[in-house]
Amino acid sequence: MADTRFFHKVEGVTLAEIAKIGEMQLPTDADGTRLFTDVASIDQAGPSEVSWAFIPAMREALSHTKAGAVIVPEKFLEYVPSGVIALVAQDAHRAYGLVASAFYPRTVEAYISPKANIDETAVLGEGCRVEAGAFIGKNVVLGARCDIRANAVIEEGVRMGDECTVGANATVSHCLAGNKVYIYPGAHIGQDGFGFAMSAKGPAKVPQLGRVIIGDDVEIGSSTTVDRGAMGDTVIGSGTRIDNLVQVAHNVKLGRCCVMVSQVGIAGSCTFGDFVVAGGQVGFAGHLNIGTGAQIAAQSGLMEDVPAGAVLMGSPAVPHKEYMRQVIAVRQLAKKK
Amino acid sequence: MADTRFFHKVEGVTLAEIAKIGEMQLPTDADGTRLFTDVASIDQAGPSEVSWAFIPAMREALSHTKAGAVIVPEKFLEYVPSGVIALVAQDAHRAYGLVASAFYPRTVEAYISPKANIDETAVLGEGCRVEAGAFIGKNVVLGARCDIRANAVIEEGVRMGDECTVGANATVSHCLAGNKVYIYPGAHIGQDGFGFAMSAKGPAKVPQLGRVIIGDDVEIGSSTTVDRGAMGDTVIGSGTRIDNLVQVAHNVKLGRCCVMVSQVGIAGSCTFGDFVVAGGQVGFAGHLNIGTGAQIAAQSGLMEDVPAGAVLMGSPAVPHKEYMRQVIAVRQLAKKK
Amino acid sequence: MADTRFFHKVEGVTLAEIAKIGEMQLPTDADGTRLFTDVASIDQAGPSEVSWAFIPAMREALSHTKAGAVIVPEKFLEYVPSGVIALVAQDAHRAYGLVASAFYPRTVEAYISPKANIDETAVLGEGCRVEAGAFIGKNVVLGARCDIRANAVIEEGVRMGDECTVGANATVSHCLAGNKVYIYPGAHIGQDGFGFAMSAKGPAKVPQLGRVIIGDDVEIGSSTTVDRGAMGDTVIGSGTRIDNLVQVAHNVKLGRCCVMVSQVGIAGSCTFGDFVVAGGQVGFAGHLNIGTGAQIAAQSGLMEDVPAGAVLMGSPAVPHKEYMRQVIAVRQLAKKK
Repeated sequence: MADTRFFHKVEGVTLAEIAKIGEMQLPTDADGTRLFTDVASIDQAGPSEVSWAFIPAMREALSHTKAGAVIVPEKFLEYVPSGVIALVAQDAHRAYGLVASAFYPRTVEAYISPKANIDETAVLGEGCRVEAGAFIGKNVVLGARCDIRANAVIEEGVRMGDECTVGANATVSHCLAGNKVYIYPGAHIGQDGFGFAMSAKGPAKVPQLGRVIIGDDVEIGSSTTVDRGAMGDTVIGSGTRIDNLVQVAHNVKLGRCCVMVSQVGIAGSCTFGDFVVAGGQVGFAGHLNIGTGAQIAAQSGLMEDVPAGAVLMGSPAVPHKEYMRQVIAVRQLAKKK
Repeated sequence: MADTRFFHKVEGVTLAEIAKIGEMQLPTDADGTRLFTDVASIDQAGPSEVSWAFIPAMREALSHTKAGAVIVPEKFLEYVPSGVIALVAQDAHRAYGLVASAFYPRTVEAYISPKANIDETAVLGEGCRVEAGAFIGKNVVLGARCDIRANAVIEEGVRMGDECTVGANATVSHCLAGNKVYIYPGAHIGQDGFGFAMSAKGPAKVPQLGRVIIGDDVEIGSSTTVDRGAMGDTVIGSGTRIDNLVQVAHNVKLGRCCVMVSQVGIAGSCTFGDFVVAGGQVGFAGHLNIGTGAQIAAQSGLMEDVPAGAVLMGSPAVPHKEYMRQVIAVRQLAKKK
Repeated sequence: MADTRFFHKVEGVTLAEIAKIGEMQLPTDADGTRLFTDVASIDQAGPSEVSWAFIPAMREALSHTKAGAVIVPEKFLEYVPSGVIALVAQDAHRAYGLVASAFYPRTVEAYISPKANIDETAVLGEGCRVEAGAFIGKNVVLGARCDIRANAVIEEGVRMGDECTVGANATVSHCLAGNKVYIYPGAHIGQDGFGFAMSAKGPAKVPQLGRVIIGDDVEIGSSTTVDRGAMGDTVIGSGTRIDNLVQVAHNVKLGRCCVMVSQVGIAGSCTFGDFVVAGGQVGFAGHLNIGTGAQIAAQSGLMEDVPAGAVLMGSPAVPHKEYMRQVIAVRQLAKKK
């Protein structure tokens, strides 16, 4: 069970609700009114708890589980012990996420701390929470049920939709964001891009006159930096997930549902399609086009455009199989010495 | 036009002023009193706006521009449509930066928030702005027209010159900085270096007794970390630009006008000449000397000193041409398999 | 001498105390009551100061030093000038660290700023300091002599032991920490891991229901991110040192006395033994086991488990000697072209 000092759980969820929330069929022989009290891992769950298994390494534990119900892909049905309710999901990971979120929902208790620093021209939707020390500048507009944590800073003119979270000590400026945007603690959004002309006379700053446009249901991780556009905007498409310590430079356009793992660096003016995945520490040179569905392995370095659906690896990146051949070729060459 | 919710523009600048600010000659047949109202990109600018073009990809758009005036290198003159005023610059990017900064100048409205936490021994120059939640510790000395944003923290004893900016949630300690230093939101300057002796008995902390010395006209990006010296100082030379998420370890000395792109990591006691450029994610091992004007490509790894003017790439880094030969050689080798 | 604007030194320490603190023998012919006033580098120290030398590059300066006493390994005794007291240490770097810490001890003047935002249910041990703007949430429990700097945020339920420091603008949530834990300015501990199921329907968040458990005497650097566990905990073992800008993903377990240099990225569920060292920018794929005492060179990429004591380099990482052979082989191959 999650530590109650940190997590707030609902009392219970019925099996019928669990099936519905998880986009699953309630088994015909199951009692939809049966109450479940929590989610738990496959080896620790008890009869009042829901668990899940969806990778081969979990099959053994699944076959011994004491969970009341388990969320599984159809092909795992044979491992579910008798007496355990099997909830079959097309995507068991997704179904588990949806169900667990029902046990541990986002709750924002409406409250404006008297120690928050909110400009009198700012407009906050109903049910917002603003903690002590949070700063909300001139003409900021926030939707309903936003959660602005301690010492977060939202600078002049920013607009965010409903149910957004801005974590502790995060900063947001020059930004228009949709609904359900989650800015993690210490993320920095909207500052100037890295714009200057360097010459023997020294640097001349090039004003960064664009914005950051964020879609719906986007998460941006801790210590991550998203610079605003130089002229025109930096754009983060709906459903995109950006991990911690990622650099998104000025005028980058990320499509929908992209996944940028920790420490990825994206240089200026790259344009991404949808569902692009980049592993940890990948670097993208400036002005590249990265096609929809491309998958880039960790630590790769991209210096050229990437076609849709490509699976690349290495620095400079090549198709995954070619990379593996390169690695083997170099190993064999070194052994000959 | 830049979004007026975020950007504050002057009403207009005359052509004569534009030429002067941009270090350009006013064309002999041009009306110096003609008023311009904004800068805009070459494809969007109208008759009252100034634009610019300086890379080959812009030539086509330049030849169709509706801008009132364009900043161009001499060799682009032939592409400037008749009726458009051509302002010829030696470095058109620099000239544009200077001109755009005149339309969108740094403005700091003098104001000390009653909710700022300023120690009574701190001394602030005339015209400073200190936002709510900013912390300014004992004996801090700030020059004129500094802009200390919400929840920034300036610890005891720090000195900064005139027209410095410390962004929201940035932290500065153990630091002496010159004029026009711009610390981005969430940058962290002056904390202890990574100093300890590890042994079977565990770690023994080695006190970090140096400072961070920053020259004039330096920018330090968001989430970037500049540790103070262990004994002796960490130094950032005047005119240097450091992007987001860069690590500058204890006792590093960066020369003048260096450019460190995002996610560069510099280990302790490296010494850089002037005008060194390091691309994104480059790593420098400790105690290296990097010569003036060296250019290091993105993702390179440096384990040896670098001569002045060298152009290096790869990990371990080699001269750029040699790196390209290595890449080709490995590709061919892999194909033979 | 360290800049007195930033550093607070004790008046003096006797030679006998220095020897004891540094785990060294007082030389039989030395006056243990002799008072020393400071530490200083080998080339700058004077007769009332203690210095140290332990790497070959310091031998020349050692032979000319004007220090009153020097901390050295036994093999450096022959370079110590006559008249200079030689303090022989098994680990001179460690001994210096201990001695310097006696001259510049951690001091925390007990003080709770009236401008700190401390929940009434929080419990603080004796002698704590909480600066203006610091936020301490519901039911937080801090031990004695903790130092909570300006605008730090400690969220609901966090527990930390004695003599912990939370730097300016750092954030801590969902965390149980031991004694002498030092969270640097702008570190972010305890936020959600990067947990979601991505599908054509978009992302489904997977609640992150674990915690961050930190042992004793741990340091976590600026802009570093330590995510809490998804289910189960992220664990940082006692004595471990984590540099700036490091990513520690959900459910990572670091053993005792590990050293993670700046910009290391550790993907989810990696388990480390004790005394593992990873150089700057190393990347670890998820779910790896890294054996005790392994040493991983800077910029390496790990995709497989690492045996105890291994010394690896490269991406993908191989034993250090094999890596050097690969580098040479590729260089030679490129030359043949």
